[in-house]
Amino acid sequence: MTRTIAELAEALGGRLWGDGSITVTGAAEPGEAGPNQIALATGAAYLEKLTAGGIALLAEGTDPEAYGLRAAVLVARPRLAMAGLTKSFDPARGPALGIHPSAVVAESAVIGAGAAIGPFVVIGEDVVIGRNATIYSHVSIGEKTVIGDDVLLREGARICHRVTIGDRFIMNPNAVVGADGFSFVTPEKSGVEEIREGLSQRAEIREQHWTRIHSLGGVVIGHDVEMGAGACIDRGTIRATKIGNGCKIDNQVQIGHNCQVGDDCLFAGQAGIAGSTRVGNRVVLGGKVGVSDNIFIGDDVIAGGGTDIYTNVPAGRVILGSPAVKMETHIEAQKNIRRLPRLYAQVSQLQETVKKLLDKG
Amino acid sequence: MTRTIAELAEALGGRLWGDGSITVTGAAEPGEAGPNQIALATGAAYLEKLTAGGIALLAEGTDPEAYGLRAAVLVARPRLAMAGLTKSFDPARGPALGIHPSAVVAESAVIGAGAAIGPFVVIGEDVVIGRNATIYSHVSIGEKTVIGDDVLLREGARICHRVTIGDRFIMNPNAVVGADGFSFVTPEKSGVEEIREGLSQRAEIREQHWTRIHSLGGVVIGHDVEMGAGACIDRGTIRATKIGNGCKIDNQVQIGHNCQVGDDCLFAGQAGIAGSTRVGNRVVLGGKVGVSDNIFIGDDVIAGGGTDIYTNVPAGRVILGSPAVKMETHIEAQKNIRRLPRLYAQVSQLQETVKKLLDKG
Amino acid sequence: MTRTIAELAEALGGRLWGDGSITVTGAAEPGEAGPNQIALATGAAYLEKLTAGGIALLAEGTDPEAYGLRAAVLVARPRLAMAGLTKSFDPARGPALGIHPSAVVAESAVIGAGAAIGPFVVIGEDVVIGRNATIYSHVSIGEKTVIGDDVLLREGARICHRVTIGDRFIMNPNAVVGADGFSFVTPEKSGVEEIREGLSQRAEIREQHWTRIHSLGGVVIGHDVEMGAGACIDRGTIRATKIGNGCKIDNQVQIGHNCQVGDDCLFAGQAGIAGSTRVGNRVVLGGKVGVSDNIFIGDDVIAGGGTDIYTNVPAGRVILGSPAVKMETHIEAQKNIRRLPRLYAQVSQLQETVKKLLDKG
Repeated sequence: MTRTIAELAEALGGRLWGDGSITVTGAAEPGEAGPNQIALATGAAYLEKLTAGGIALLAEGTDPEAYGLRAAVLVARPRLAMAGLTKSFDPARGPALGIHPSAVVAESAVIGAGAAIGPFVVIGEDVVIGRNATIYSHVSIGEKTVIGDDVLLREGARICHRVTIGDRFIMNPNAVVGADGFSFVTPEKSGVEEIREGLSQRAEIREQHWTRIHSLGGVVIGHDVEMGAGACIDRGTIRATKIGNGCKIDNQVQIGHNCQVGDDCLFAGQAGIAGSTRVGNRVVLGGKVGVSDNIFIGDDVIAGGGTDIYTNVPAGRVILGSPAVKMETHIEAQKNIRRLPRLYAQVSQLQETVKKLLDKG
Repeated sequence: MTRTIAELAEALGGRLWGDGSITVTGAAEPGEAGPNQIALATGAAYLEKLTAGGIALLAEGTDPEAYGLRAAVLVARPRLAMAGLTKSFDPARGPALGIHPSAVVAESAVIGAGAAIGPFVVIGEDVVIGRNATIYSHVSIGEKTVIGDDVLLREGARICHRVTIGDRFIMNPNAVVGADGFSFVTPEKSGVEEIREGLSQRAEIREQHWTRIHSLGGVVIGHDVEMGAGACIDRGTIRATKIGNGCKIDNQVQIGHNCQVGDDCLFAGQAGIAGSTRVGNRVVLGGKVGVSDNIFIGDDVIAGGGTDIYTNVPAGRVILGSPAVKMETHIEAQKNIRRLPRLYAQVSQLQETVKKLLDKG
Repeated sequence: MTRTIAELAEALGGRLWGDGSITVTGAAEPGEAGPNQIALATGAAYLEKLTAGGIALLAEGTDPEAYGLRAAVLVARPRLAMAGLTKSFDPARGPALGIHPSAVVAESAVIGAGAAIGPFVVIGEDVVIGRNATIYSHVSIGEKTVIGDDVLLREGARICHRVTIGDRFIMNPNAVVGADGFSFVTPEKSGVEEIREGLSQRAEIREQHWTRIHSLGGVVIGHDVEMGAGACIDRGTIRATKIGNGCKIDNQVQIGHNCQVGDDCLFAGQAGIAGSTRVGNRVVLGGKVGVSDNIFIGDDVIAGGGTDIYTNVPAGRVILGSPAVKMETHIEAQKNIRRLPRLYAQVSQLQETVKKLLDKG
């Protein structure tokens, strides 16, 4: 999309400096921007790479003249402005408006106006989809699933049967919503059950076959949720797995059956939440964080990358490590472990000194 | 499926209490059950949520009258009964019987009676599939693969060429069987080989390009195996990767080339087993467990979530931590680490006291 | 493919011993090889399983006569020879030459000679693909993507729009290149930003909604790169995510937006690299290794399985643990933790002895 820098400044809620008539055709990093690309100087390190004669997005308080710019948009929070700016210039084209002739859409499915549905899409019976859906090739949507307006489903995304999803849902390629939960039972008490009861040795080890518990519940997902490539959200056993509004779920994240996740959570790549766990609002899980089943994570918890959470976490806590503890506690513990060689030497010396004292006495 | 509660009691091998003529149309959690839904009171916590006038599944020993129920099914192990009950009420419809006209099925493929094959399925040359296969849309099956009876392959599942799979195999969406193994070699000894030989510093660092070792072996999977969404089992280099009967493999689990897995194992979400490792029978790996290549895990080993297994594990052991140790040892070690600040203080005080004693002497 | 053992010896650059006229139809492990299969005795443990009268691949220095072989190929590095040998005997057939009639290929796409394109493949507008492409069923390639010669794309692989890929690229089933990066911003400073600034407690917890930063950059991948099943490489925010020549990326690996990866790296299963991190040449990440965002990993770094890398790593370092430290340091730290019970006992005894000394004094 092409526009003047004045129009762009207005769209971003920023302040224009310099020649507002310059046409902007795209965005680039400082040092790599062409003459009509706006350089994104979102941090101090980028400022020195700005080219004289160029145009840029700057933080308020920066002097565009000092960098010899022709024009600039000044904003309070450049990273936030990037959101609007990248949305304007996103070149992804998507499938053509209408339904591709190769798509297989059930007659009972109801699809809102403005849909663009690509080749080899399969939409099952009684599916309801809102307005302006963009559905790339090879997507499948199972029967009786209901999806809101303005959704974007990328190539190979899988939404199974009887799932409910809000507006503006974004699903990256090969992500999966509504696969069966991982729920099995043995005729007698299993070894895992025994250990959970006491952490002790198992009384007796015997053969155990696993019988499948089917997943009758669906998945209910709120508005403005995004799922990364290969991410999975399993369906519930009896009631639905739930994901609140505004949650952002990165690539290869796994959310188990029956989980109840609040609003505005952020789960980074390869994080995993086992079945039946409840997660509050605005919880942030770093990359590769693991969360045990059947526990509770309070609102506003932040877990650093690689954290393993085995037990409930109170609201507002910042945690790290395996097992997860408060971040300060973890850092202190690591320090204590690093100091151990000195401690061993000190104790050794003490033993010697005390031995001498004893001998003397 | 609709049936009377008397029929349901008989199907589940349970004892009927109350009015056996009540129709059951589905199952729900206590407190959320409609008039014809059976409330699943599988644990004590659920009992208090039961509604008077309702119907329920209860553990033997519970008094249905105390909760004002109209009828109940009493069983010894409610969680086990749930398996049968959820199977009865699973509403998933699957593709229509027959082969969807858009599917591409090789003429040389042999497909048993009762198959339901959805849109855009691809079945390669010389494939053999048993009776009653349910194959959802977008599935692909490579040439010369042989699959048993009563299999269920969900949307986008990929089974590559020359794979052998038993009866009742279940594959969730976008899972992959038979991708190429991750096997590469450098012309000279690689840095990794040097380190494995001695854990010491590397003699010399040099450029190294990786040459691919192709995977000629297939995958052999037993009966009653289930794979979660996005899970992967790689093919073997020369002989086949093997998965025994009754194994349950959760979402995003990775099983490397040449692995030999026994019967009735349970691998939870995001667990990973590197190449050429042997795993015994009834081994349980918690979520995110990692297992090194070329090692051996004995029968009945249970590894807690997040455990990293670098070396052989004897049969029957319950392990936890990174590196994996006996669960008790791990818990003891964590306690010892938490107590370190006090130990540092004690040693410090001892040093002072001993110094005074020395000065006095 | 069938050939004499003399031809095979020449193709592998090895030395023929014995009857060069024997026909070789395949390869097998010693003890499982049929009469015309070459037994791969790549390690000492395999030698004793060789069958008299058979044919084998051996390391130079081994005496074929001692094992009663009829013929053998002797090579300096048997594992390297396996690369050539498995390539010769790989039985995977792939799609037929030409474009399957069900494939949807944009008129503006340019596809080189020798292509074999399977059913239900979708190739977008202005895509350019080199010679001899092998593209299995259900693959999708987004608009304006450019791919080199001799590529192999397996079932369900997803390459999004505006991606650039070199020659001999191999992509296993359901892998994804060019999904959107995981990049979000809050109107005010988020809790994560606060913690990164000081690791301290957060000043104030407030509601925060996440606004999406679109990914305008593509992905640029060099020559001879391979991706495992379900692996993901995200597109960059403004400039492209980059993967150098010769990189081998295993199943379910995740590489975040803006990452810059050098040449000849090897990332094992389920490893993950967060956004904007730079990785040098020949870096080896073991299974499940996690790498934080915005850091730098030097050339020739080797990280053992399960390592969590939170900070920059200098070139050539061999690391292990969470947080990552030098491998020796990690092993030493584990030893120190295991010795703690004894230390606690020693300090306890010291306290008693010193108390007695004090009492005496």
